[in-house]
Amino acid sequence: MERTLIADLKTHIGEDVTIMGFVSVRRDQGKLVFFDFRDMSGIVQGVVLPSNPNIEAAKNITVESSVSVTGKVNARPEKNIVQGKQNGDIELLITSITVLSAAETLPFELTADIHLETHLDNLPLTLHSERARDIFTMQSTLLEAYRQSLRSQGFTEFIAPALVGGDAEGGAAAFKVEYFNDTTAYLATSPQFYKQIMVGAFERAFTVAKIFRAEKSSTTRHLSEATCLDFEMGFIEDERAPMRALQQAIKDSVRAAAEKHQDIFERFKTSVPLIPDEIPVLTLREAQKILNVGEEPDLEPEHERNICAWAKSEKNSDFVFITRFPTAKRAFYTYEDPSEAPFSRGFDLLFRGLEINSGAQRIHDYATLVERMRSRNLDPKKFQFYLQAFKYGMPPHGGSSTGLERYTARMLELPNVKEATSFPRDMVRIDGRLSEMVEPENE
Amino acid sequence: MERTLIADLKTHIGEDVTIMGFVSVRRDQGKLVFFDFRDMSGIVQGVVLPSNPNIEAAKNITVESSVSVTGKVNARPEKNIVQGKQNGDIELLITSITVLSAAETLPFELTADIHLETHLDNLPLTLHSERARDIFTMQSTLLEAYRQSLRSQGFTEFIAPALVGGDAEGGAAAFKVEYFNDTTAYLATSPQFYKQIMVGAFERAFTVAKIFRAEKSSTTRHLSEATCLDFEMGFIEDERAPMRALQQAIKDSVRAAAEKHQDIFERFKTSVPLIPDEIPVLTLREAQKILNVGEEPDLEPEHERNICAWAKSEKNSDFVFITRFPTAKRAFYTYEDPSEAPFSRGFDLLFRGLEINSGAQRIHDYATLVERMRSRNLDPKKFQFYLQAFKYGMPPHGGSSTGLERYTARMLELPNVKEATSFPRDMVRIDGRLSEMVEPENE
Repeated sequence: MERTLIADLKTHIGEDVTIMGFVSVRRDQGKLVFFDFRDMSGIVQGVVLPSNPNIEAAKNITVESSVSVTGKVNARPEKNIVQGKQNGDIELLITSITVLSAAETLPFELTADIHLETHLDNLPLTLHSERARDIFTMQSTLLEAYRQSLRSQGFTEFIAPALVGGDAEGGAAAFKVEYFNDTTAYLATSPQFYKQIMVGAFERAFTVAKIFRAEKSSTTRHLSEATCLDFEMGFIEDERAPMRALQQAIKDSVRAAAEKHQDIFERFKTSVPLIPDEIPVLTLREAQKILNVGEEPDLEPEHERNICAWAKSEKNSDFVFITRFPTAKRAFYTYEDPSEAPFSRGFDLLFRGLEINSGAQRIHDYATLVERMRSRNLDPKKFQFYLQAFKYGMPPHGGSSTGLERYTARMLELPNVKEATSFPRDMVRIDGRLSEMVEPENE
Repeated sequence: MERTLIADLKTHIGEDVTIMGFVSVRRDQGKLVFFDFRDMSGIVQGVVLPSNPNIEAAKNITVESSVSVTGKVNARPEKNIVQGKQNGDIELLITSITVLSAAETLPFELTADIHLETHLDNLPLTLHSERARDIFTMQSTLLEAYRQSLRSQGFTEFIAPALVGGDAEGGAAAFKVEYFNDTTAYLATSPQFYKQIMVGAFERAFTVAKIFRAEKSSTTRHLSEATCLDFEMGFIEDERAPMRALQQAIKDSVRAAAEKHQDIFERFKTSVPLIPDEIPVLTLREAQKILNVGEEPDLEPEHERNICAWAKSEKNSDFVFITRFPTAKRAFYTYEDPSEAPFSRGFDLLFRGLEINSGAQRIHDYATLVERMRSRNLDPKKFQFYLQAFKYGMPPHGGSSTGLERYTARMLELPNVKEATSFPRDMVRIDGRLSEMVEPENE
């Protein structure tokens, strides 16, 4: 019999159907066996009656097994209807179950509140859980809505490279790659240079890119491999243009999440983030004054949490922009207007206590850029490719970069960004733990 | 004055406006100076009259400079209207031009037919060209439409990792990365294992992922870093399910290209690809019979071109599926039905002479998979993470992988896939040429 998707069962009441999916739950209740099945379209309850010759076999079907189930779709009697649950008013009276692929007995229940390390050690199993599916369903929605927003604002998507020729920004944070002909390549720490170059092609360009950081930091907000939503736009007056474009992308993606995933917000005991028409903007110094802290060059994580709490209570916003950081603390290509020195036209966007985005107006003048490199002891010769873009009419421009995993994590108030990463890489783990990696080449 | 986008100029005839953009063309004609300006929305012609006090300055404005231009939008007299060209019926009578960023004199004209190496040496400039903008506009459309097609077919997007713990498929083609704690990581050669794992979460999953190949091959169809459109789906009968899903994604993306980019197809002297309702399917042996060649285990590049020519002339299709390759020549996880041995349930999709996609039904049974690994001298211990997925109810499943750059290249009949890669990496190049890379660490 042809497969019916679980979401379509309601249109088959009284009919015999075949569904295929995973066994989410099996409950042996007296002489009956109940199942919850799930496929990509949803969930439904099924029941095997004692009279069914398959009843004993049904009792041996393990949770998470893949099955093909034939049965009759019955409307539930009024008293058994579960309101607000998909297919809460129907039930599948099972005739036969074929196990397509039997699951071993699970090492723990998928609904259990397990330690993050256990979760990560067992990802091929734990990604089956409702919690994980919720997180990555949300991430998929945010990713799509963010891109759509940028497209609707005139941005063209491009593919930025992950392999780069140098540790461009001069930090020690780039992973080294053995490349061809005994050369060393690096993994990109940002698609920054490439999106700036793309301003020359499209004026507005964006990319969803991988970035890699070899930083030896092990916090709840760092990843060795992360995904960034990066855009860059030309012909701007100042940093407020990319801030507006970003605000629109945030609004559009939050709206998409709100429209599609009210149930997920509820399961995570949080709510759709608050965004006023205009996200509040504070200069660094204004924020420090509000927090009553010293005029340090940046905000500490604790300050980020506190200024977000302030924005929520005072401005009814889960988001807040911080601007006018000291130029010296920002990337070398950050634009500084002489009248605004020593502050630059950079900005950060904080969301529920965490920086999720960083952006700026950039230097567009060739000579100024070279001078800035020199002042930071960066060798312009190593930036020849990038600098070429500035020889051919680079307009005033700016952009920003959102961390997809951080954005997802704060959307659902997850305690650790690793939970918002399907296969996180960090100092101690690439799928398995590094300590278990057998690498004879290094012995 | 607030900026007006060039595409909106027609609604401002008779008005004074300010546009911003790049100078595509400057023509000094007698006492007049004509310009073509372009911004992200399109192109328009402007003219500076001899009476304008800025006329001499205008003659010094270099091509590709970024400018802000104020002037009056005039309807052209009937005889000067250029049919079929954007804004061919209007002209900007320029009052003033401000150079925002002056371009150096170009080393060659952007319309020149330059050598690929010259193109790549000057990407920050050559990406400004109409040819490059066309190629990457097309790529952006294909990427978006392909993703949308998969979403509409019930697939959930996820992010696959680029850093992996082992050279999983056992080839010598993976780049090595210096990872933490003196371990060696590798760059992914495919998101294969991860998308299979994601079948357990979403039943249908897709990813746009980077793949890296350290193969020492220098052809018109190989890249060291490429982008793949990968999907995987569960609960299938056989390989025909992923073939249908792929066919739909190809149809939807070709349709989007046809709807939006007729002009680009024309400029590349090609046409919208032909796709019949059902893309023709040939087994390898059938294809070899048609080509009158021996029963080799795979098709040579020349055979791919010839069978595509056959499909076009005989089946009116620019696409053709080849199925039933010998199992021994396919990836270890490829499903082989005993009744079909020694052939497997893999397939390739050829497009205008080139393989752009490879897919298959996969092995879903744990014991069979381990046995297959052993038969290929792969150590199951190294695949523990991947194998975990097969312990917990992995349904029958399959999927496929399309190379975005190859797909784009054949769409526009580009001679080399590198031209369809915004920043291509190969054996001799990462932006600049490797021979020029200064890497004191290796000395």
